Formats: sequence, C-alpha cells, structure tokens
Amino acid sequence: MSTASHRIVVLPGDGIGPEVTAAAVAVLEAVSAHFGLALAFEEHAIGGAAIDAGGEALPAATLAACQAADAVLLGAVGGPKWSDPKARVRPEQGLLALRRGLGLYANLRPVKPHPAALGASPIKPHLLAGVDLVVVRELTGGIYFGDKTRSADAASDLCSYSVAEIERVVRSAARLARARRGRLVSVDKANVLETSRLWRETTSRLMAEEFPDVALEHQLVDSMAMHLIARPRDYDVIVTENMFGDILTDEASMLAGSLGLLPSASLGDGRNGVYEPIHGSAPDIAGRGIANPYAAILSAAMLLRHSLGLAEAADLVEGAVAQALDRGVLTAELAGDGRAAGTLEATAAVVAAIV
Amino acid sequence: MSTASHRIVVLPGDGIGPEVTAAAVAVLEAVSAHFGLALAFEEHAIGGAAIDAGGEALPAATLAACQAADAVLLGAVGGPKWSDPKARVRPEQGLLALRRGLGLYANLRPVKPHPAALGASPIKPHLLAGVDLVVVRELTGGIYFGDKTRSADAASDLCSYSVAEIERVVRSAARLARARRGRLVSVDKANVLETSRLWRETTSRLMAEEFPDVALEHQLVDSMAMHLIARPRDYDVIVTENMFGDILTDEASMLAGSLGLLPSASLGDGRNGVYEPIHGSAPDIAGRGIANPYAAILSAAMLLRHSLGLAEAADLVEGAVAQALDRGVLTAELAGDGRAAGTLEATAAVVAAIV
Ligand SMILES: CC(C)[C@H](C(=O)O)[C@@H](O)C(=O)O
Ligand SMILES: CC(C)[C@H](C(=O)O)[C@@H](O)C(=O)O
Repeated sequence: MSTASHRIVVLPGDGIGPEVTAAAVAVLEAVSAHFGLALAFEEHAIGGAAIDAGGEALPAATLAACQAADAVLLGAVGGPKWSDPKARVRPEQGLLALRRGLGLYANLRPVKPHPAALGASPIKPHLLAGVDLVVVRELTGGIYFGDKTRSADAASDLCSYSVAEIERVVRSAARLARARRGRLVSVDKANVLETSRLWRETTSRLMAEEFPDVALEHQLVDSMAMHLIARPRDYDVIVTENMFGDILTDEASMLAGSLGLLPSASLGDGRNGVYEPIHGSAPDIAGRGIANPYAAILSAAMLLRHSLGLAEAADLVEGAVAQALDRGVLTAELAGDGRAAGTLEATAAVVAAIV
Repeated sequence: MSTASHRIVVLPGDGIGPEVTAAAVAVLEAVSAHFGLALAFEEHAIGGAAIDAGGEALPAATLAACQAADAVLLGAVGGPKWSDPKARVRPEQGLLALRRGLGLYANLRPVKPHPAALGASPIKPHLLAGVDLVVVRELTGGIYFGDKTRSADAASDLCSYSVAEIERVVRSAARLARARRGRLVSVDKANVLETSRLWRETTSRLMAEEFPDVALEHQLVDSMAMHLIARPRDYDVIVTENMFGDILTDEASMLAGSLGLLPSASLGDGRNGVYEPIHGSAPDIAGRGIANPYAAILSAAMLLRHSLGLAEAADLVEGAVAQALDRGVLTAELAGDGRAAGTLEATAAVVAAIV
C-alpha cells in the first residue's frame, strides 16, 4: 500500500461536529499506523465557529487549505445561535460555498441498514433486509444556487440546470451503478418543471449513448418519496437534483434507523472531496460525549476509498464499524432500553477492531 | 338539513378516474336519498380525455362549468399516452389550470390510518396508532407556477411567493389547527431559500398576531421528511409550500398503507372547491374494475363538509367507509393474501352502510 503523504483538512464545525470529527481522525490514525500510511491532518474553521472567530462562514484561508488538500473531513455546521433569518451571514453558507468552491457536484449517500439498527427504524424489518442503495445528489446547482430576490412583500429563488451540469452528475451515478448492480433510477418532476424535463431528456440520451448496459428508470419525486420506504430493496443507484436529493436522502436515512450511521462523500472531477456525516450539528446534545461517531467514521472510510484510493483501508474501517455494531456498541438513539455507549466508547470499539 | 339544490361538476379524467368518480357519485346519490338532498351532477372533460376530444387539457367549457358549480369532484389525470416530454399540451396542465383558475390555494390532505390498512403500511404499527394529521399544501404558487425558460442547453423554473400568498394559506391551516388540537408545524428550507425565509417570517408574525392560541413550530423540509415517518403521532396540522407539500403528502400517504385511502380538498376563499383522491390515474389497472374507490368516496365526504356545509352527511359517509374497512372489504392493494374486493363491491359496501 502507498506510503506517500496525504494531506487531510479537518473542518470540525459546530455542535457535535468537533466530537465526531475527532472520532474519525482517531480511526484514521489507527488505520494509518496499521498500514504504515503518512496522513497529515490540518484543522480549519467553518460555519458558526468561523463566523464567531472572524465574521465569515467560509474564511479564505479555509477554502485555500481545502483546495490544496487531498481530502476534507467535515463535521457539521449551524445551530440556533446563528439561525436568525435576518442574519447577514449564516453557517450553512460556508458549507454551500465550500461545495461550490471545490466543484463537488456529486454527493454520494449510501444507505445499507445494519441489523443492529433495525429496531430503531420506523420501517418494518422485513422490508429492510437486503437494502443497499446509494443516492447521488447533484450538489452545486439547482435552486440552492440560483438568483434570489427579496422585497418587502415577495421573494424568489431561481432553479436552473444546464445540460452539462446534468450530464456530469448522471455520468458519476451511472459509473457507480455499473460497478454495482447496474440499475439507475433518475428522479425528477417532469410533469411540472422545465428543469426536470431537461433533466429527463438529457439523462435518457446520455444513458442510451454511454451506458446502454445500465438499466434506466425515471420516477417522479412524489412517487419516489413513497417507493423509497415502501420497497427500498428495489433500488440500486438513485440520481436526482439538489433539492429533491436533500429531501429524499433524509427520508432514506430512516431506513437505516438513525442519521447517526450515514456517511456521505461529495466529489467533483478531481480526487479531492468533502466527507461528512449526513446528520446535522445537533446542538441539543453537543459537548455531552454522547454523539454517534459512526457516520463520521464511515465518512472517513469513504475518504480513504474515493480520495486516497485506499480501498483496502476503507474496507477495514467499514468492517470495524460493523463489528462494533455487531457487538452491541450502540449510542443512545440506537440502544433503546439497552445500555448506551458514549462517543469515546464507540470510537474505541472501532479502533480496537482495526489495530 | 338543507334541501336547496347543489350543482356538482364531475371531472372523471383519465385511467381509473372514471371508475372511482362513478363510485363517489353513487355514494353521493345514496346520501342524497337518505337526507332528501337535491344534488345535480354534470360531467365535463379534463386531462388526457379532453386533449383527445379537443386538443386542450382544460377546455373553456369545463372551467366555466366548474366556476359556476357549488363543488367539483375530480378523478385523476395523465397517463403514458400523453407523457411525451415534448408534447405541446399535457394532461397535468389541465389540473394546474383548474386549481389556479378557481383560486384554490389551500390543499387539505388528511391522513388518519384505518386499522384495516396497517398491514399494508411500510411503517411499524405501534408508530401509527393514533396518527391523525392534516397537511395543508399551498396549491397555486411557488415553483409550479413561476416563469419557465428553456434553451438548447439549459432550463429554469422560478419559485416565488408573496406575503399575501403565504398569509392566506397559513391562515387556512391555522383555523383548521384551532378547530383540531391547536398545533401547527410550518415546513420550509429557510437555511437555503429566500422564499422560505419570507415564509418563516410571515408565518411567525401572522401566528403571533392572529393565532396566539395555536402552538407554532418551524421545521426544515429535510428534517420533516424524517419526522413524518419516525414520529407521525406528534403532528396535528402541517402547512407548507407547493413543491414540498407534493412530496411530503405522498410520503405521508404511506402511513395510511395505501394511496387508495387518501382524499383531498382544494379550497379558496369561496365555498367552491375541487375534491380528488390523491392517487393518480393508475393506467396499469384502468378499466379492470379493481381500483380502490375509497379515496374518491372520502373526497366526496370532504365535498359535503367543506363546499356544501353538510357535516352530518360527511360524517355518515366517513363512517360508512370505516364500516366497510372494518368488515374487511379490502381492494387488492390492501387485501394481502386475503380475498380482494373490486371497485363495485367496495362501493356497494359503503352504500349499504348508508341507506
Ligand atoms: C445544512 C444544509 C444547507 C444542507 C443542505 O441542505 O444541503 C444539509 O441539509 C445537507 O443535506 O447537507
Ligand atoms: C399531477 C401533478 C401535477 C400533481 C401535482 O404535482 O400537484 C399531483 O402529483 C398531485 O399531487 O396532485
């Protein structure tokens, strides 16, 4: 395995962000020792913490460090302290600017429920056996980034997509589908939106031209919101635009029983990427040592796989988390009436399975 | 009870639309006989059927008849026959033009799972006991109706809301909440969208001024997509903008086990309204006599309640559907391994419980 030095920027962010990124770094250190890697970590500010420190949600130094890095590990941003709707600058803007600044247009959110978490899922267990899907969400376009207007009595947000923006994210999703079970579902609202009609036409054409071996199906977003929980086993890779992806991935997280188990990778054309749990900053439990670190640790596994090309190390981390769950090391939201493990105990269980 | 004549326009539409509206009309006839009402029915074309007949999804004669009516009962529109994304006119446009033409800005979608349908829900039964919520979806604004553009290599849809549009639908939802359990949750994406920030500010101000007795909570749409299935019992009335409402109501339908049980009412400032099942035209089962008529029948009950002011008649119809379900008269999607009832048998069971 490679011993070249890898530069990883860590952005702890707000709330439980610092606790869960610390856990992920501890696991990466263990992996590094195990394989004799040279990982260099560098911490920078983002979100509310950065606003408090210098007034900007994404300081220029942070963006520059991320641009120069091999990969970025992020905690979470935001919290009530910075949520005044009239605030000039909000933590979330830091996250959006980072995604956009690094050109990370494809956000991968895998959902593969672990048996230990089925009790915590609102979905009937027999529907969850064998679920293994990935949502690929477009991350740098759509209504998130379109022009906005505001007057005393009205407001607007523009949703726009170009053919090129659609093509590149669909291509990422189709490549992933080809390496998995060969099935891609594209989600839109083509019966109402012009952007969705362009999305559908572009996807159909591109898939026919470049991925004739991958089965393509189109779904309307409202139907998808039903099918996702009614027959989740039917899905392999799902690709969709930014806003629909935001909603559907949070919905899909319920299949896994807890947001605390779900990692994500945000990728662009290069190898660099941002890896973050899909949960938020959870200010209500911040600083209490009880946050679930598994999503951040699994995000670190995605970092090893996608940005560093260390598939074996990624497998080791994913296997270690599965072992910890198998052994019943469950944080509060998963433990039910059983004994709950804290952040450090859960992290230690993963590290123990690695060294 | 009133014996004034009520003029009801019936718009069967496409697919299973004609079958389920016929069922709802049969039930209304039975109610009419029972209470000595004078209901006059008048059928008009909409959707694909109207396109086939005259090239327009909402013929002027249909809109005029609906405007002159006391209430409108609609089946469903659309189907693969008219789904070419490049078609000049699409069935859905008829529905959107009708909602807009009648000024029906508040779409009420109640979800109250019946015990007989719990087996068909993907959600664990213990989470569903006692669920009784209504989503109020804004129906004539937002990204559905904003300017659209399309060029060879890009497309756009504009989402806009005015303070007045937000106020009127929030007021409808708050009145409903006041008449129920006094709790309103407003759903937006205020951490990203300008329209959502206006939505949140307007809602907070209006509720403080006019509904201090109704408890208000704000939720982000992505979180709501989780909470809706993880703790559905916590909700009373949920109000949201058009696109989010489209997605969340289809998701919420899974609580009830089947789309085939869920009615809706679309209301404006007057008493007139459009009543339709939330399911679609289901072209795959059209004409086979197996469609579930309960959602259309429950929509007719909402028509009696909201447009005709006949609460007692509405209660009778709702009670009759509950009785049919209690007796195990279940259509195919609900029957599991048991015997499935057809559309006519289910309708007859409801009628039998009325006369
Ligand atoms: C914090 C927020 C801006 C963000 C988003 O909407 O993209 C979050 O919900 C996510 O999904 O990563
Ligand atoms: C048919 C379609 C235009 C419609 C909508 O999106 O409003 C439908 O999904 C609904 O929810 O009534």
